[in-house]
Amino acid sequence: MHYFKSRTSLRDALIFHPRQFKFMIIVLKPNSTDEQIQHILEKIEEMGFAHDLSKGEKRTVIGVIGEEDLLREAPLRAIPGVEDVHAVLKPYKMASREYQEEDSIIDLGYGVKVGGGHLMMIAGPCAIEGKEILSEIAHAIKASGANVLRGGAFKPRTSPYSFQGMGEEGLKILQDVGHELQMPVVTEVMDPRQVELIDQYTDIFQIGARNMQNFNLLKEVGSTNRPVLLKRGMSATVVDLLMSAEYIMANGNKQVILCERGIRSFDSSTRNLLDLAVVPNVKGLTHLPIIVDPSHATGRPDLIPSMSLASIAAGADGVHIEVHCNPELAKSDGPQALLPHQFDEVMKKMRSMAELMGKTIGDPVATA
Amino acid sequence: MHYFKSRTSLRDALIFHPRQFKFMIIVLKPNSTDEQIQHILEKIEEMGFAHDLSKGEKRTVIGVIGEEDLLREAPLRAIPGVEDVHAVLKPYKMASREYQEEDSIIDLGYGVKVGGGHLMMIAGPCAIEGKEILSEIAHAIKASGANVLRGGAFKPRTSPYSFQGMGEEGLKILQDVGHELQMPVVTEVMDPRQVELIDQYTDIFQIGARNMQNFNLLKEVGSTNRPVLLKRGMSATVVDLLMSAEYIMANGNKQVILCERGIRSFDSSTRNLLDLAVVPNVKGLTHLPIIVDPSHATGRPDLIPSMSLASIAAGADGVHIEVHCNPELAKSDGPQALLPHQFDEVMKKMRSMAELMGKTIGDPVATA
Amino acid sequence: MHYFKSRTSLRDALIFHPRQFKFMIIVLKPNSTDEQIQHILEKIEEMGFAHDLSKGEKRTVIGVIGEEDLLREAPLRAIPGVEDVHAVLKPYKMASREYQEEDSIIDLGYGVKVGGGHLMMIAGPCAIEGKEILSEIAHAIKASGANVLRGGAFKPRTSPYSFQGMGEEGLKILQDVGHELQMPVVTEVMDPRQVELIDQYTDIFQIGARNMQNFNLLKEVGSTNRPVLLKRGMSATVVDLLMSAEYIMANGNKQVILCERGIRSFDSSTRNLLDLAVVPNVKGLTHLPIIVDPSHATGRPDLIPSMSLASIAAGADGVHIEVHCNPELAKSDGPQALLPHQFDEVMKKMRSMAELMGKTIGDPVATA
Amino acid sequence: MHYFKSRTSLRDALIFHPRQFKFMIIVLKPNSTDEQIQHILEKIEEMGFAHDLSKGEKRTVIGVIGEEDLLREAPLRAIPGVEDVHAVLKPYKMASREYQEEDSIIDLGYGVKVGGGHLMMIAGPCAIEGKEILSEIAHAIKASGANVLRGGAFKPRTSPYSFQGMGEEGLKILQDVGHELQMPVVTEVMDPRQVELIDQYTDIFQIGARNMQNFNLLKEVGSTNRPVLLKRGMSATVVDLLMSAEYIMANGNKQVILCERGIRSFDSSTRNLLDLAVVPNVKGLTHLPIIVDPSHATGRPDLIPSMSLASIAAGADGVHIEVHCNPELAKSDGPQALLPHQFDEVMKKMRSMAELMGKTIGDPVATA
Repeated sequence: MHYFKSRTSLRDALIFHPRQFKFMIIVLKPNSTDEQIQHILEKIEEMGFAHDLSKGEKRTVIGVIGEEDLLREAPLRAIPGVEDVHAVLKPYKMASREYQEEDSIIDLGYGVKVGGGHLMMIAGPCAIEGKEILSEIAHAIKASGANVLRGGAFKPRTSPYSFQGMGEEGLKILQDVGHELQMPVVTEVMDPRQVELIDQYTDIFQIGARNMQNFNLLKEVGSTNRPVLLKRGMSATVVDLLMSAEYIMANGNKQVILCERGIRSFDSSTRNLLDLAVVPNVKGLTHLPIIVDPSHATGRPDLIPSMSLASIAAGADGVHIEVHCNPELAKSDGPQALLPHQFDEVMKKMRSMAELMGKTIGDPVATA
Repeated sequence: MHYFKSRTSLRDALIFHPRQFKFMIIVLKPNSTDEQIQHILEKIEEMGFAHDLSKGEKRTVIGVIGEEDLLREAPLRAIPGVEDVHAVLKPYKMASREYQEEDSIIDLGYGVKVGGGHLMMIAGPCAIEGKEILSEIAHAIKASGANVLRGGAFKPRTSPYSFQGMGEEGLKILQDVGHELQMPVVTEVMDPRQVELIDQYTDIFQIGARNMQNFNLLKEVGSTNRPVLLKRGMSATVVDLLMSAEYIMANGNKQVILCERGIRSFDSSTRNLLDLAVVPNVKGLTHLPIIVDPSHATGRPDLIPSMSLASIAAGADGVHIEVHCNPELAKSDGPQALLPHQFDEVMKKMRSMAELMGKTIGDPVATA
Repeated sequence: MHYFKSRTSLRDALIFHPRQFKFMIIVLKPNSTDEQIQHILEKIEEMGFAHDLSKGEKRTVIGVIGEEDLLREAPLRAIPGVEDVHAVLKPYKMASREYQEEDSIIDLGYGVKVGGGHLMMIAGPCAIEGKEILSEIAHAIKASGANVLRGGAFKPRTSPYSFQGMGEEGLKILQDVGHELQMPVVTEVMDPRQVELIDQYTDIFQIGARNMQNFNLLKEVGSTNRPVLLKRGMSATVVDLLMSAEYIMANGNKQVILCERGIRSFDSSTRNLLDLAVVPNVKGLTHLPIIVDPSHATGRPDLIPSMSLASIAAGADGVHIEVHCNPELAKSDGPQALLPHQFDEVMKKMRSMAELMGKTIGDPVATA
Repeated sequence: MHYFKSRTSLRDALIFHPRQFKFMIIVLKPNSTDEQIQHILEKIEEMGFAHDLSKGEKRTVIGVIGEEDLLREAPLRAIPGVEDVHAVLKPYKMASREYQEEDSIIDLGYGVKVGGGHLMMIAGPCAIEGKEILSEIAHAIKASGANVLRGGAFKPRTSPYSFQGMGEEGLKILQDVGHELQMPVVTEVMDPRQVELIDQYTDIFQIGARNMQNFNLLKEVGSTNRPVLLKRGMSATVVDLLMSAEYIMANGNKQVILCERGIRSFDSSTRNLLDLAVVPNVKGLTHLPIIVDPSHATGRPDLIPSMSLASIAAGADGVHIEVHCNPELAKSDGPQALLPHQFDEVMKKMRSMAELMGKTIGDPVATA
């Protein structure tokens, strides 16, 4: 039972009447039965707090959230079956390794997984421009081994006068091509008002770098059941990134995939600066998977192959590569895309690299 | 006549069926009559384009926006009364000095203005915490010479567990205190769904640094009639900032006030890095006013007085200073706030500085 | 008596057999006589430590430096006349306000001073290119109110194939023009081997941004008697800057003038990013004067006037502006220089600003 | 024949009477004989220019350096055997791929090479602290597969009061241990006056990040015959780095190995920010080898293994890892060092990675 689903009153509170909340962890005695756990959850509810159950292989913990003043005084330790009660010191709670020791493995649809040794290989064009062209690209990348298809229908463009995406028409095309190829799809959501619409078409939500701290948007995708690909903001610290993941998780959706896509720096020879050390850095702090987007990070097709390999070597759970059949004509971000045959070469090397690192690139499979 | 108001179909197009648009400038012959201008606008409409009229003291220009392919071929130069037609080379159009030579002067309510020699002195607490405390602060800052009152009702907090503002209750308090003191108020809007609500309570919208590239939010405040205080993002370039202003202007609202509030950098001895050279830099490129927020930029009360003076010396059109009666107890950003008596000292020096720079700090006046 | 002068063995130790040193402060009892002070210094020498005497208006303190292990155990507190003994917590010692409360006032020659209300106005070309042209510039800037003449004879150029300065010939020209106009001169030293040569020609040494952490060069100018203008490195923190000042002071030369000249950042519309808040930030931590170089910080003549005024408003002890009669033809950094008539306009405004801030721009005076 | 060696007058000119120089490339006709080449070199000398011969597998080119005015007019194209004459557009000349297409392979001593598929694995303590401890570390790292031993004798420390290295005594220890283990050694040089001394003890000079633009130091190591490990400055662009390499090469020493060691950025969770994309970025521009130092870049032992693997995957020609037997006691940079058994584990994985990437980690061999 998930408190944010069952107790909408609290979730509403978090969104509409927000106060200062505290987050405590209850560690259960080993070998607690489901019945005992259920009893503890009920006790917590009786005290007026929300709860979140996290069953690991080694230990089961319950997160308890409530108003700071009340929670400080609550006799949680006295509940039978409770072994220990403590606060999580990190500012992010559910996202922390302290709260969940084992790597999260997230189901993306069509049997594709990410995390815990499963690699996510996202490829596709920056923007959806038409069915034929998307289908052509999708066939090519799937044949090369990509297991998730990307494409933007709503584009966050710096200029109001630039092409801003095909909108719902694009979403339909993306869904159709995904169905046809039996491949999960991911697309960006920019506005809390679009969440409901996009939810009907996509398998995975993408939150772009510019919206990493669009907190109301995070809350909104946090109340869906779809995996969320959360891109790091251009000047976000590691803690900022994990706090944004926490926003999504605190609203009930634990399927968050982090993505490094380059930060702002002083050398203009690349579009952004790829911060690859963030991969092992983040992995020490959280159980969530993290992938890398060398396309936006470098903006240079000549650097993408090397940085894709380096990402897997650094421990990333996947990569995100822009592929287009005709980069010169692409309506946005064209010049940074790989051609399908270049992507194919990268994927050949990626497979050897995955093997060396003991990771698996799962193929999408037909879902009966 | 403003095209975005009159021709909602185009504005809808910009939002819901976005394509690639082109922006041209028509320079009218000197001494054109209103009748002649009206005739030109009609011609432009007949061609199927949107238009924006900008009457300056020296010259009158009309911006013409339309689909790239169509506009490239349109015989704009052949319209009688047209002296010259050219594209604006800068990526921002209506925001550029090329489009409007004279400084914009924006009315903030209660007779307070910003731009063109008028200084805007915003002060108040980070978050609204109650009527009594806000009223106390407001009386103090008004007595010291502030002419706009600030206070957050919806707060963008890094943590989902932190106090996130009083919401609508806070908005009511802010409006009441503003009315009572006959002083314009400004408050942050974080979500396109909040624009309608907040519009009922505030005189000025604030777009926070984290939302500077929340383009749908920009479009939404762009379709209101209220001035917008647009804060620079933590890693936004000068061009990024002006492009975000253009989003608001392209949707019909030209009352944009820019605000420098510090960028991310490597020295942790201040909260952010105040980029003061952005003031004259931006002023060369745009006619829009720009103010400075030394409170968020430095995060250190000991540096705020010096940097406030330096801002006016650099040519800024105002400053934004957090003031609280009890910084230690403030629910968010407390330690960076000035005490009222400290603010009073700053304002005394600010007045001499304003005089030296030939600028005016207008007092709010009762509106009959 | 200065220990580094008198006890070369210790200075040699710092340079040639460096170990881990500790720095303690002895606060003397009020109204100590010179005889008593002398006695304490002798006691410290007997214990085998180096000392540094700092007489303030309010209190006299003695810095004691020695090997960590020995100094920890030394009975300093038992010396008669000693009121208190404590360690300086900041990593910089002699540079700290804790060690010297009052602003340092540094003599630059020809009666010009900097610090404690005295403003230093450095102007001149980037590189010395010939006597006639330097003399012309020098006459112009002196007439406008500059009180220090700059000019580079050895230039740190990014390319080995670029003009690298006139060398000693340039130094002679600089000295001649300085003598002629009775004006102190400043020039850059790049190499410890050049210190002796340049010392014969200049009044003030300049350490460039690229050499801020060229520690052996700092030690070398630290053993001269000339004021040192120490420019902040392009990615130096405030602490880094003060530590570099400490290197110079620890080698016996306390006449250090800090200079902010812009740091590396992400917006390429200015050459560097002027960090003006560093002025009040640094002034809280050290007694040393700090000036600002808007020429190198912005690289744009159109921004220099505003940022010069803002520097004084922020509390800086002076500015450093490049002036050239023919910027287009200047052999290095030409386009960022002001023309003499532009500099003259800036200086007019600077004088009003100085007056408002209660500061003085002293004219150089003939030294009999 | 190398002009900088043979024609000291020109090299002296570059150092002591620098002017504006121009650099041209002469491409020779295919299959030119040594006699023909010799003739062309003589012609160039007759014209008064310096020359640099670069024999590649595919083509032989000659670089010609001279005063801009003279070289512009020189009839180079008329010399028999010359196929083409052109300027190198990049600001770095000898360092560019345009000048030399094939990867440089640099001999480090004891049969160890770097570049063109040969990996350099540098390990050792930050500072040399004594013979016994260095010998112990050296035996351990050599057994694990490191092929170059590092250790600092002169340390660039931020504080004048910190341990600054053992000086010449340390150099002797380093040389002894290197000889004993038949392993090339590398140590930092901070001062042009130290070059002659250090040259007697080391196999490779290291230029630290803080000295990357200490141009006179670059010139000085540029006139030796030892390989130079040039570390990227904390805020150096790719072009800055290559220009510093050019300084060394223009003074006659082409054995430059670049090293990425992290740049300054805003997230304090790592010491610096490792810019790994600089590896393929630089490799596209220059024929020089580039290695990575994850120890200084991250400052965190937990991130070093992943980032070492990622470096090789990104195409780096080696890594530089700090190893200490007792990091807690190390006199400088201790906590960031790996323990020998941790280094051993990294090297095991590095060998598999090297194999996957088609690279070789050569063992040092006894030199008869």
